[in-house]
Amino acid sequence: MATFKDIGLSAAVNLLSAFSFLVAFAILRLQPVNDRVYFPKWYRKGVRSSPTCAGAFVSKFVNLDFKTYIRFLNWMPEALKMPEAELVDHAGLDSAVYLRIYLLGLKIFVPLAVLAFAVLVPVNWTGNTLEKTEDLTFSDIDKLSISNVHSGSKRLYAHIVMSYVFTLWTFYVLRNEYKIVANMRLRFLASESRRPDQFTVLVRNIPPDPDESVSEHVEHFFCVNHPDHYLTHQVVYNANKLAELAAEKKGFQNWLTYYKNNYERTSKKPTTKTGFWGLWGAQLDAIDFYTAKIEKLTEEENAERERVINDAKAIVPAAFVSFKSRWGAAVCAQTQQSSNPTIWLTDWAPEPRDIYWDNLSIPYVELTIRRLLMAVALFFLIFFFIFPIAFVQSLANIEGIEKVLPFLKPLIRIGFVKSLIQGVLPGIALKIFLIVLPLILMTMSKIEGFTSHSTLERRSAGKYYLFILVNVFLGSIITGTALEQLESFLNQAPTEIPKTFGVSIPMKATFFITYTMVDGWAGIAVEILRLVPLVVFHLKNTFLVKTDQDRDEAMDPGFLRFAQSEPRIQFYILLGLVYAAVTPILLPFIIVFFAFSYIVFRHQIINVYDQIYESGAAFWPDVHRRLIINLIISQLLMLGLLSTMEADRATPLLIPLPIITIWFHMYCKGRFESAFVMFPLQDAMVKDTLEKATEPNLNLRTYLQDAYVHPVFKGGELEIAQITDEEEHSPLVVTKRSLSSKHDSDGSSKASR
Amino acid sequence: MATFKDIGLSAAVNLLSAFSFLVAFAILRLQPVNDRVYFPKWYRKGVRSSPTCAGAFVSKFVNLDFKTYIRFLNWMPEALKMPEAELVDHAGLDSAVYLRIYLLGLKIFVPLAVLAFAVLVPVNWTGNTLEKTEDLTFSDIDKLSISNVHSGSKRLYAHIVMSYVFTLWTFYVLRNEYKIVANMRLRFLASESRRPDQFTVLVRNIPPDPDESVSEHVEHFFCVNHPDHYLTHQVVYNANKLAELAAEKKGFQNWLTYYKNNYERTSKKPTTKTGFWGLWGAQLDAIDFYTAKIEKLTEEENAERERVINDAKAIVPAAFVSFKSRWGAAVCAQTQQSSNPTIWLTDWAPEPRDIYWDNLSIPYVELTIRRLLMAVALFFLIFFFIFPIAFVQSLANIEGIEKVLPFLKPLIRIGFVKSLIQGVLPGIALKIFLIVLPLILMTMSKIEGFTSHSTLERRSAGKYYLFILVNVFLGSIITGTALEQLESFLNQAPTEIPKTFGVSIPMKATFFITYTMVDGWAGIAVEILRLVPLVVFHLKNTFLVKTDQDRDEAMDPGFLRFAQSEPRIQFYILLGLVYAAVTPILLPFIIVFFAFSYIVFRHQIINVYDQIYESGAAFWPDVHRRLIINLIISQLLMLGLLSTMEADRATPLLIPLPIITIWFHMYCKGRFESAFVMFPLQDAMVKDTLEKATEPNLNLRTYLQDAYVHPVFKGGELEIAQITDEEEHSPLVVTKRSLSSKHDSDGSSKASR
Repeated sequence: MATFKDIGLSAAVNLLSAFSFLVAFAILRLQPVNDRVYFPKWYRKGVRSSPTCAGAFVSKFVNLDFKTYIRFLNWMPEALKMPEAELVDHAGLDSAVYLRIYLLGLKIFVPLAVLAFAVLVPVNWTGNTLEKTEDLTFSDIDKLSISNVHSGSKRLYAHIVMSYVFTLWTFYVLRNEYKIVANMRLRFLASESRRPDQFTVLVRNIPPDPDESVSEHVEHFFCVNHPDHYLTHQVVYNANKLAELAAEKKGFQNWLTYYKNNYERTSKKPTTKTGFWGLWGAQLDAIDFYTAKIEKLTEEENAERERVINDAKAIVPAAFVSFKSRWGAAVCAQTQQSSNPTIWLTDWAPEPRDIYWDNLSIPYVELTIRRLLMAVALFFLIFFFIFPIAFVQSLANIEGIEKVLPFLKPLIRIGFVKSLIQGVLPGIALKIFLIVLPLILMTMSKIEGFTSHSTLERRSAGKYYLFILVNVFLGSIITGTALEQLESFLNQAPTEIPKTFGVSIPMKATFFITYTMVDGWAGIAVEILRLVPLVVFHLKNTFLVKTDQDRDEAMDPGFLRFAQSEPRIQFYILLGLVYAAVTPILLPFIIVFFAFSYIVFRHQIINVYDQIYESGAAFWPDVHRRLIINLIISQLLMLGLLSTMEADRATPLLIPLPIITIWFHMYCKGRFESAFVMFPLQDAMVKDTLEKATEPNLNLRTYLQDAYVHPVFKGGELEIAQITDEEEHSPLVVTKRSLSSKHDSDGSSKASR
Repeated sequence: MATFKDIGLSAAVNLLSAFSFLVAFAILRLQPVNDRVYFPKWYRKGVRSSPTCAGAFVSKFVNLDFKTYIRFLNWMPEALKMPEAELVDHAGLDSAVYLRIYLLGLKIFVPLAVLAFAVLVPVNWTGNTLEKTEDLTFSDIDKLSISNVHSGSKRLYAHIVMSYVFTLWTFYVLRNEYKIVANMRLRFLASESRRPDQFTVLVRNIPPDPDESVSEHVEHFFCVNHPDHYLTHQVVYNANKLAELAAEKKGFQNWLTYYKNNYERTSKKPTTKTGFWGLWGAQLDAIDFYTAKIEKLTEEENAERERVINDAKAIVPAAFVSFKSRWGAAVCAQTQQSSNPTIWLTDWAPEPRDIYWDNLSIPYVELTIRRLLMAVALFFLIFFFIFPIAFVQSLANIEGIEKVLPFLKPLIRIGFVKSLIQGVLPGIALKIFLIVLPLILMTMSKIEGFTSHSTLERRSAGKYYLFILVNVFLGSIITGTALEQLESFLNQAPTEIPKTFGVSIPMKATFFITYTMVDGWAGIAVEILRLVPLVVFHLKNTFLVKTDQDRDEAMDPGFLRFAQSEPRIQFYILLGLVYAAVTPILLPFIIVFFAFSYIVFRHQIINVYDQIYESGAAFWPDVHRRLIINLIISQLLMLGLLSTMEADRATPLLIPLPIITIWFHMYCKGRFESAFVMFPLQDAMVKDTLEKATEPNLNLRTYLQDAYVHPVFKGGELEIAQITDEEEHSPLVVTKRSLSSKHDSDGSSKASR
């Protein structure tokens, strides 16, 4: 087990590596040639169009101003400077509220750490149990933990009291935060300028009608049932094939540009092969080949577009119905239309760029079956994922490779190669799985049939959280696979499970400290380096880019990957809550993680990420719920730990804690959640009235006309954007989102792929 | 253990007692003097005003027509004659759908019994395990049960297949029934004539306003936020004290009538004592005493009424808001009004007579705390109820009585009295508790703060179901208190629990057969006798009644006690589902229970019960959910039983069953539940349009004016009823509920006490 010295050494190594990443970042970001990698957000917003420092030819690529290198950490205070209100304008509410999760971690754990160090550390330190025993499996760290307290000691009451204090403090912070975020959301929605989704409702499961087309049927239904409010509607075409064709064409166009640039540079006619990835087949002139391909695809695309628009079967039974007022839309979105609750399903339309077009036409029964299958699949993924990996690992040993690919035998027999394969291969299968996992989870969410990207991300985050909870947290505590845990869950009494886990918690503290430093500290420092986008940008820049516009398109600002990073935060919060009363020495490490992440992500959000949608912090109820789950897990584990420490009279005092926590959750849910689900009629009425007074002559029909057209049909996209811009620049209501609107269609077409 | 002979004997005894109750009923119901006890529904409906056979003086009290005695069971076919549509008109949808639960039991269990006897009984009978063993604890019954099959036998596959068949058949019946009931409800709501609750929304948690009264505040809020639809509103007065005074006065009036009648009969001035219950105190003239008392109370009542109407503090922050159309009310009931979801809470107003007035003004936070406390209380009630009873029992022994009441010593020492006390007293405490239990559960539901009688009954039924499930079903299987069960739940592995219960299931079959006969058969036969109302009516008739109107008021038709009888049905359904695959011989007994109950309750609903509210079968989702829970319990127990029978390869085949069942529940919930919660806009629009076309000059404001006035204020009640009646008798829309409307206020004031 680790001593203070070991931990110190590990901390030094990790701090050093994090520091070196930061230095690398500081140097790279100052090079003008990397400007589009580290400041893409500003390019996207149109504020920046070329690196800031102009001058000699060399200084276009390399920064020669050595003074700037000295202040290499000055991005940190800069990242903190922007006030929150401006941040909301600059990057949207989603990003601003996401940052608040890190702040929430700090708000919870800084006071907890102070209290724990003031009260529990002295209590533990003077417990003196471990000094008496000569057991070498205990380390210095454990002297500060609850393990140092004698079983059945009166000192354990201190831990119980502190558990209550910690829980109540967490309640206080959580409730405040929920209230603040709910208010931010309401203010955000209220201050927003006119947007199509405020007037529009997504109607799904439109029943087939033998006499009318979908469009007529929708119009008649809403004219009858919402006579005073119905304005217009937009049917949804099944344009999945068309989108595929467009994506394919785009790929060929990239190759064409590549070969054209090549030709210009070398003046040598480039050639390619017709086979797969240009690896085999007949040799041909590359430019001609791709030009022909693109022409063919364009024709196919046009034919398909014609077919989709004219074929009644290409219209899916879903529509975007727009209303004359926000009040009318709010009413339609919140009420049931038909006596059969599986048809004419209405819900708020997502933002146009947030829509996941593929899922708009799934019938009700299919949807319930899909959810059932995915729930079963998730269960197997979490508890049985180790089997296929073990299978691959068993294949990927030396003997297996020799058998399948006998010609590699001589190579493999070389000592160095052999040990490399044996050392690396088994790990690789697991690593590849973990990299692909978020993708698998996202695919599962897509199969579940949700209709917006924001919902898909939220659902994936939930799945990922469960995976981390079972396989990383619980799996590390009782070392063993998830399946072994499942077995112990099934074969142990419910009261025994917290004991089994609780008793090994203090022993795992050093492991989790190391984990926090490697994954939390160094991992976040890697994030800011953006290695992959850096390489990809320079590749594109070299081979594909000709004009500045090309260069702008080659930028990949990326976006906040909520589905991956939020569950990670929750894991650290769980660690902190579990160890706050057990081994408080872990808290400072977690606090460093939260503080460092906060600065890094604030920098990234300001300078890099370009969100593809804006959900108005709709994810907060999920964050809150998972935090409550963390709290309950930590309480149950504490209960289990104490009951193994012979504190029979003291332990029952902890039983009310989880009950109060569940009640607190229900209270918060009732009090705040609807701000994230519903849109109150009062607010709708206020906005409608204001609008009527300020713009009596507004032509809403024109405004909404093309808002919900599938992105592949947006040929006349720029004209529409023009109209929107004009209106948004009207002097009556100041808007803040005109700059990003040009890129909407970009983002959503990218994401729907 | 019981042999066939024992069971046969028990069946004979119970059949005989049930039969004798039926004979007693047949004789009593034919006596004209009992007419108001056994046919009150017809009096309430105004169809009958005096016993049918007139004639000699004697025949007014005793039926001398002996021919009618011969056909003493002819009430049975008569009860079945009325078609369901007429039953809905006659007794309301609640009662008609309630009867369908018994029919549902028959629909599930008759095919199950046929299948089980065709397949499982032969399989079990030829299993021959028990013949080999000389174990005397097994009975003949067990030869027909799964116990007779060899452990690990291939025959167990038959039970697994049948489990699937039973589950799928139950799904089929359940889904059909849900669909039928949902359609019945929608048709019922659509065919209903105009009712105040169709236009009215109950608004709770109106925020206080420093400048405006509650009434002004409501008016302004809804004028602004529902400008095209708001019509009028009615504030709610806190008239609980007034209602108490009125009830007290009614009691004194009864005494006054009693003494006046006494005086008329005996011509002797009756006297009473001023003390408690007239037991001690000064002797006084009774008539003067009560006249004075009533006068004083009337004054107090008037003063209180003045105070309530004029005092702003007597207005609770709740109101009934009415709209110009059903569409407007449907919109308001289903949407969120304010951005703070704990104020301006809107929901459909219950029927005026369904409202539970005391609970209209509970603030949000208090409500959540009340629910938490009641959940904890229910837990303790279910698992720890035995302790106070044991305590009372320990007091109520011979020695205890001797100590507390020493003067009874000589009496108690008599052998007969002593053995009586020792034999009866301990049982009495438990019996009293079980009688009072529904009252306790109802009180708990009232504390939880629900605002309508129908919801209160539904919530109480849920609590009672849990109590029966734990204390009767599980408690009988592993003989022991609920607390012991709880301990075994906590200290056993989750996979062990079904085994513990499963393994003792076959052994308890005979016990449950006997229980079914005693509680199910004989218990239902007692129900039809109506002993308590019979005695009470004759007491009232003798001492209080002077006019025919008095006699009508002395009738106590009672009503269907959903909160008590529905959980009981669920218990028998659970028994049937559990034993269908284990000991099919139990099924015929349960089928008899369902068939007999169906006839008895159909008779009671047609002739006796007078429902105090009509919720439109809103309880069906609860019935369905509990049936699903029963199904899952039966599947888990089957799983546990099989896993103890060494059928290792076969048992896992049962695991998908509960998963499919949960999925089926979610499917049904999504598909049908909203018909019981929401009112679709399409239906509202159809009714509005129809009404506008048929009655263009309807004055809705007058119609709704006094609909939601607290019953104690209904001084001018009759005039209002007049208006309602006139409108309901209008030739345009035929109404079916004018007859019962006169008694609305009666019912609701009785129930709110």
